[in-house]
Formats: sequence, C-alpha cells, structure tokens
Amino acid sequence: MHVDAIVKDLLGRQTEIINRLCSFLRLPSVSTDPAFAGGMRAAQTFLTDWLNSMGLRDVQLLDGGGHPAVYGAWTGAPGKPTLLIYGHYDVQPPDPQEDWITPPFEPTIRDGRLYARGASDDKGSTAIALETIAAFLRGRGSCPVNVKVFLEGEEEINSPSLRTIVGLYGDLLQADGMISTDDSRMHSTVPTINVALRGIVEFEFSLRTADKDLHSGLYGGAVRNAVHEMARVIASLHDEDGAIAVPGLLPPVSSVSQSARDETAKFPFDESNFVKDVGARINGEPGFSTRERLTLRPSLDINGVWGGYIGNGSKTVIPSTAHAKLSLRTVPGQDTRQVLDSLKAHLLKVCAPDVKLLIDDLGTGSRAYYLPTGHPLLIAAKRVLSGAGQEPVLVRLGASIPITAIFEELLGIQTLMFGFALSDEDIHAPNEFFRLASLADGLSAWPRLLEQVGELSADEFRSIAAVAADKAQQFHPRVAPDSGATEPGSAS
Amino acid sequence: MHVDAIVKDLLGRQTEIINRLCSFLRLPSVSTDPAFAGGMRAAQTFLTDWLNSMGLRDVQLLDGGGHPAVYGAWTGAPGKPTLLIYGHYDVQPPDPQEDWITPPFEPTIRDGRLYARGASDDKGSTAIALETIAAFLRGRGSCPVNVKVFLEGEEEINSPSLRTIVGLYGDLLQADGMISTDDSRMHSTVPTINVALRGIVEFEFSLRTADKDLHSGLYGGAVRNAVHEMARVIASLHDEDGAIAVPGLLPPVSSVSQSARDETAKFPFDESNFVKDVGARINGEPGFSTRERLTLRPSLDINGVWGGYIGNGSKTVIPSTAHAKLSLRTVPGQDTRQVLDSLKAHLLKVCAPDVKLLIDDLGTGSRAYYLPTGHPLLIAAKRVLSGAGQEPVLVRLGASIPITAIFEELLGIQTLMFGFALSDEDIHAPNEFFRLASLADGLSAWPRLLEQVGELSADEFRSIAAVAADKAQQFHPRVAPDSGATEPGSAS
Repeated sequence: MHVDAIVKDLLGRQTEIINRLCSFLRLPSVSTDPAFAGGMRAAQTFLTDWLNSMGLRDVQLLDGGGHPAVYGAWTGAPGKPTLLIYGHYDVQPPDPQEDWITPPFEPTIRDGRLYARGASDDKGSTAIALETIAAFLRGRGSCPVNVKVFLEGEEEINSPSLRTIVGLYGDLLQADGMISTDDSRMHSTVPTINVALRGIVEFEFSLRTADKDLHSGLYGGAVRNAVHEMARVIASLHDEDGAIAVPGLLPPVSSVSQSARDETAKFPFDESNFVKDVGARINGEPGFSTRERLTLRPSLDINGVWGGYIGNGSKTVIPSTAHAKLSLRTVPGQDTRQVLDSLKAHLLKVCAPDVKLLIDDLGTGSRAYYLPTGHPLLIAAKRVLSGAGQEPVLVRLGASIPITAIFEELLGIQTLMFGFALSDEDIHAPNEFFRLASLADGLSAWPRLLEQVGELSADEFRSIAAVAADKAQQFHPRVAPDSGATEPGSAS
Repeated sequence: MHVDAIVKDLLGRQTEIINRLCSFLRLPSVSTDPAFAGGMRAAQTFLTDWLNSMGLRDVQLLDGGGHPAVYGAWTGAPGKPTLLIYGHYDVQPPDPQEDWITPPFEPTIRDGRLYARGASDDKGSTAIALETIAAFLRGRGSCPVNVKVFLEGEEEINSPSLRTIVGLYGDLLQADGMISTDDSRMHSTVPTINVALRGIVEFEFSLRTADKDLHSGLYGGAVRNAVHEMARVIASLHDEDGAIAVPGLLPPVSSVSQSARDETAKFPFDESNFVKDVGARINGEPGFSTRERLTLRPSLDINGVWGGYIGNGSKTVIPSTAHAKLSLRTVPGQDTRQVLDSLKAHLLKVCAPDVKLLIDDLGTGSRAYYLPTGHPLLIAAKRVLSGAGQEPVLVRLGASIPITAIFEELLGIQTLMFGFALSDEDIHAPNEFFRLASLADGLSAWPRLLEQVGELSADEFRSIAAVAADKAQQFHPRVAPDSGATEPGSAS
C-alpha cells in the first residue's frame, strides 16, 4: 500500500480518529495532583489497550518509581532504522476551572478547534503518531521503520523518574533516533522545523537579614530589609537595555554563526504582533534582533519573587527574608556547570557581606540542544515538508525540552521534533485547544516522514548521523555530561 | 484625703484590683472577628457597669457604626482642667491558640506575670486608669480634674469608625488634653516618657509590563520582566548605606534639634543587644546613631513584595506584574501630602516609560506626633516620675499611634502617653502578659499624675499648653490637616 493511500485512509477516517482522541482527552491524566491518580491509571490502560490493539509488541508500563511510561514496539523491519516515538500522556492541571468555557475534560469542538486540557499538549500530536503507526500496520501489515513508542507520564512535572526509567530500560529503548511529538509549530502556513532548543538552569535563592520579620516602628531606618537587598541583587542581573550583566553568562557575539543568523532571518517573524498580542514591552541585548535574542542568545529571568507581608491590607514589617526563583536559558555550546557557577559567584559578590545568601538548587534543568544540519531525520523532515516550492524554514526555539538532552546524553540518540500543535493554543491555560486542521496536517505528514526515513538502511542512517554530528561539534563543542544540572526538568 | 492615702488604698487593694482585671480579661473582646461579637458586648456591659458603679455620669456607648466606644464622665471640678482618658477594650485575636501555655481568656499568674490576651495591650493599663478614678471618687468624693473616659472598641482593627465617633460626639469629647493608657514603657527601671511618635504613610504599588505572564521559553531575552522592573524601582529607594534616596523625603540634617539629639542620647540604648536579639544587621543613614535613625529620622520600607510564580517548584514565566507594599515613617514637621507626592513622583520617574505604574493608596496612616516640651501634661508627668534623683528620660518612638494625630486634628487636644506596659510583653502574640509590678507602678503614678494636673486651673492649663504649642511650632511647623492620608490606621 503506497504511502499516499495510507494518508488517504487516515484523512478519510478523521471522524473516527477525532472520536478516539476525545476518549483519550476525557481521561483526566493530571500528573501533579494525587487526586487525579485514577485519571492517570485510566490513561495508561487506554494507551496499553490501544498499542496492543494496533499490533505493537512488548506493550508494558515502564516504572521508574513515579508515574510509569507506556511502551510498545514494532520491530518487524530488520535492517531498517529504529526510531523512538516520544509523546506524553500526562497533562497540566485544569485550574482555574471556572475560566473554561466548556469543562476541561469534556472535549468540545467549536469553530474547527477541539477544546480540552491536553488537546494541544500533547495528546493531539501523540494521537497523530499512534494513528500513523496503526494505519501502516493495518493497511500494509508493516511500518517503514522499526518503532518504539515511549509515552511519558511525568512530562508536566519535570520528568522526575525519566532518568531512572531510561537507566532501567536502556536496552528496550535502544534506537537510532527519536521523533518527538511534543513540539509546536511556529507558523500555521509556513512549514518550519525546530532544530535547536535553549537549555535551562534554574534555582531558588533566598536572602536573610534577620531571624524574624521586624516591626518597622521599632527597627525602621536602622536595619537591613531583605526585600531591599533582594531588589539590589535582582537589579544587578541586567543592564539598562535588558542585556544580561552577569559575567560569564553571555557567549561572545562572535560565537553566533552567520548561518544561524541567516536561518533566523528567514523565519517570518512579526515583531510588532509578537508583543502587541500580549501587551509586552520589547527589551533586550543590543546588536541582536528580537528573534535572535529569543533563540540564539541566553536569557535570564526572575520567574517569581516574594518576601514580607503579601496579604490584604498593610502590615508594617521589615521583611527578614526574601526569595526568588531564577531561570537561565542557555544556548548550544554553553556548559551548564560553568553558567551555574558564574551565576552563583555573581550573587555572592553582589550580596552585602552581612546578608545571608541561600541557594536552593532544584536540580532541574537541561542543556541546550541542537539537531545537526545533516542529520537524516532532519533531511527526511525537510523533504516531507517541502511542498509548493516552499522549503521549510529551520527555526530555533527559545524554550527547553529536557528529554532531547536526556536521550542524547543517556542513549546517544538525537531527536527530531515533529509535532503539530501551534504555539497559540493556550497550553497550560484555560481553554486549551488543538486545531482540527493541524490534525489533518499531521496525519498527512507523519506517514510520509516514516516512509522517507525508511528509505535508508539502519547503517546508512547511522553513518549520515555520525557525519552530521561531527560537523556540528565544530560549531558547538559539546561538553562532557555534567551530572549536577542536567537533571530531568519541565518541558518548559 | 491626701493623694498618698489614695495610692496606699490602691496598693492595699491589689488582690481585689487584680481580680477585677481578671474578670475583664476573661471577656474575649476580639474586635476583628464576628465570632467574638458576644465577647465585645460583654466587655461593653462590664465597662458601663463599672463606670456607673464608680460614679461616672453620662455613661453610654458612642456608636459610630462599628464597635462602639464606652464613655463616662465626671465633671464635678469646675474651673479645673478636663482630661480625656483614653484606653481600648478590644484585643487582638488569640491565634495561634495552641501556642498558649494557659488559655488566652483564662488569666493566669505565673512568676509575677499575669498571662492573658489583652493583659498588656491594653486592659492592664486601662484598669490602672479606671481604678485610679474610682479610688479618688470613693476616697475623696471627687477627682482632682474633670475626666472623660473614652474606651475605644476598634483600636486593633485600625479604628475604622473613630473619626465618625469623634465627629458625632465632638461636644461630649471636648477636653483640655488627653492621657492615653495605650503606651508601652521603654525600660523597666529607667522612667521614660514618650513624647513623640513617627507618622506613617503607606500604599501598595504595582508594575505591569504585559497583559499576562509570558513563557520565558517564548519571550525570554526580548521583553521586559515586571519583577526586574520592580527590583530596579525598589533598589532606587535607598543608597548603599541604607539612607533614603528619594528626593523630598529626608528633612535636612539641620532640622534635627540638638536638644532632641541630647534627649535621645540620654536613653540607655544597647545597640549590640538591639540587633543581637533578632539577628538583624545595622544599616542606615550616615551621621546619625541607631537610636536617632529609629526616632528622629524617617524610614522607608518595602513591607512586602510579590510577583510571578511563588508556589512550589519552578515555573518558567516572565512575570507581567509585580506588587509591593510600601510604608514611610515620617517625623514631626513632615507634611503627609508632600511626602506622598514626593514618593509617587519618584516612582513615576524611575519607572521605564513603557512600564505601567499603579499606585493603590490604602488611605491609612497618620501624621507624626509631638508633645511639646512645655506642655502641662508633660510637666506633670515629669514631676510624678522624678524620684530618687532620677529625671525621667524623654523618648521618642519610632512607631505610630494614629489616635494622637486624630484627636489633635479633630479636637485640637494633645496627648500624654502614660501607660505601664513594657515593650517585651508579647502583645499581639501568644502568651501575652502584664507584669504585676507594672500594675503597682501604675497605681502609684496615676493618682499623682491627676493630682499634679489638678494643681492648675483650666485657664492656667490652657495658657501653658498654648505657649508650649507656639514654641514647638517654631521647630516643627504643623501643616494644615490633610484629609487624604490622615485616616485612622493601625497603632503600628
């Protein structure tokens, strides 16, 4: 059965496919809240049943001590490449529930959009991948490549047991590459492929200036205030333009290759709409375009700050402690340990000597990721998405997806991100939705992608991947895996 | 009956007086919590019965729409000064109840201390004043001065209806001066008189940099972060030493009189213990001692700050809003409106033009207060407390008590603070207590104070007070009452 027929079959069965996706969306698989344990188990059962019914083997739960991953494989194509297919079945909490127009776990179609928690992140794209495999097995009795489906259950809670699972089931997970469904497209009409991700390091830090909050009538004017100290520290992190001012965090401007800047310029990025939509104010490192700042340069943000009395009305205390959550987005080539050390050294330096600084490293985060230009998965994706004379634009994401770095580090495999969500679908927010048009786009592209990869033998795939990796190494030398900060982290 | 006999009578009846105080303390008169409405009513009944039984006239509840004040007068000394006697019968909530060694509304004596909610703030000192009046009326059939007892029921909740009550019952409350029992002594052996209070202005402000929190993976490096902007604003409020850096907030150093500095130096202040006890770090305006910074100079504190994600774990948002609670302690002579304007102008100036600043004036606060050196109430208090060759030390408080400013503004009368609490008696906290030794101190001093004031005729009292006020005006010119910020506020 020709791949065009597989696609036609899938597109002809969209009602059935949407219904199955709705069944999946009805299961409240919220990983962060024990109250939803039943929803998590229901989703596991739903997926194992589905994987079994489509003909995958070895279907099982991979338990790493937390919510298990769902696994199933089809390895009936000897000599062909083996691909891990990554998705996740857990979803964000639905709060605030009252802001949903229709309930988060009652999928509803309005204006060509399927509204439900998890529709865009990541059940919609996960379903596209699974329907594709099922269609090949049903229509052709085989897949163009060997596939190992790996559906994580803790993506929304920073993947706490992902490293354990990969360690325990490393043999089962051996593959030549990975395709991840957990990805969003940058543009609804211009085809794009995400080839890079920023990394992330994050920690909390606290300042202490006294044993307890003090009465400002009794101490005001004579003692340090932890919030004032915190303000001074945070203000030292950036210069007036908004550029990072911490020594050691900004790679030299010369490290940004012209080809990366050229690729970035190709992406149709509407700066005025970018900020207008959200009422934001442009601010950042001089010498770079907004899009370059977002993807080719690190960024440093305080994600939250608190200290003193924050209830209703007033309370005239001098806060004794202040707390901040900090995250740094790194770019490929940056050493996680070195940037962490630079950050901590800076905080120590700018704190007054009598102020106590406590750094609480959450141990989360991930290195930046880069899929080399000549990688066979990237070549295949480019072919699939090239249509009507339009080459797909290679884009880099400002966000971080730790699984790419984890699978690269632990299994030596690289990831093509090939999801069909769009970036405006209110993931993690009320009224999350997935476009039905995206479902059709995905059901057209996924079979062709697997078919394209299947034109290579496993050996060919591996040698092309190795050459591409060597070449990339010249641009972004990778540092040795650093145990400290390359822990599982939120795909965030 | 000589005043010495009155004192002897009071000291001889301490058991009876403690028992009556215990009956008062057993009534859970928590003003903030409707669950204690019965306790409030019981305290009102207890006090009206007591005032009636001791021979006061016009005993009544003064209703301003909230918890009423209890009032009673004895005006049988024509030609003598008339004094308002201020106390409050409401108390703080007892929470956390589990931290009390004995229940908060079961008064218990341990080691010479009477433990109960309200014992120190302010039922103990209120009882001293009432027992004194009763002893005069019982022993002598008259008081040395005319007295109008005014016992507030909303002191612990920012006196929301105090202005209304004073407005409605202004005629009833006419007096030549006021003595407040709501006061704490700075030292257990060195006699002190509190002659000044700092004022307070407070507001919340918020900065907005976007319509909603943004994902740092999608916007990081290219847009403003409200927490960064807030840090810059807060950091601009003080210089490196901790001195206020906002133009218009610090009165010139020359405005601090040498006599005030001399008086301040007389108070035995142990700076190392002051900070050691609470683990605080000294910091403040150069050129002033710690004690001077606390009482003679304004202080500016951020009492609380919050913005972005402050829950457990991490969330990689770029906060779109950040909030801060700010309070400024002012010193006598500062114009509340002018300092508010200076503060707001500074915030506007240091905010980036594209950042939205919102100021939410809580309408609370009070002006600084100063009892002039030559005021007849102060002269009387000094005489009473001078003993064993030890002149009482005039101290200034860093804290603020709005009623002093309110009675000065609305009734033109000035207040002597003459309470017998000590500042370590865990008011507003579990295991509040009042020292029985303080009860005896108060029962010795109060009759002598009234007697001393009664040596003046009303006319003499008024003319001495007027001269003192004129003189003070030269040092601390008072501004016209400013309606905006001189609202009832917490005695804080």
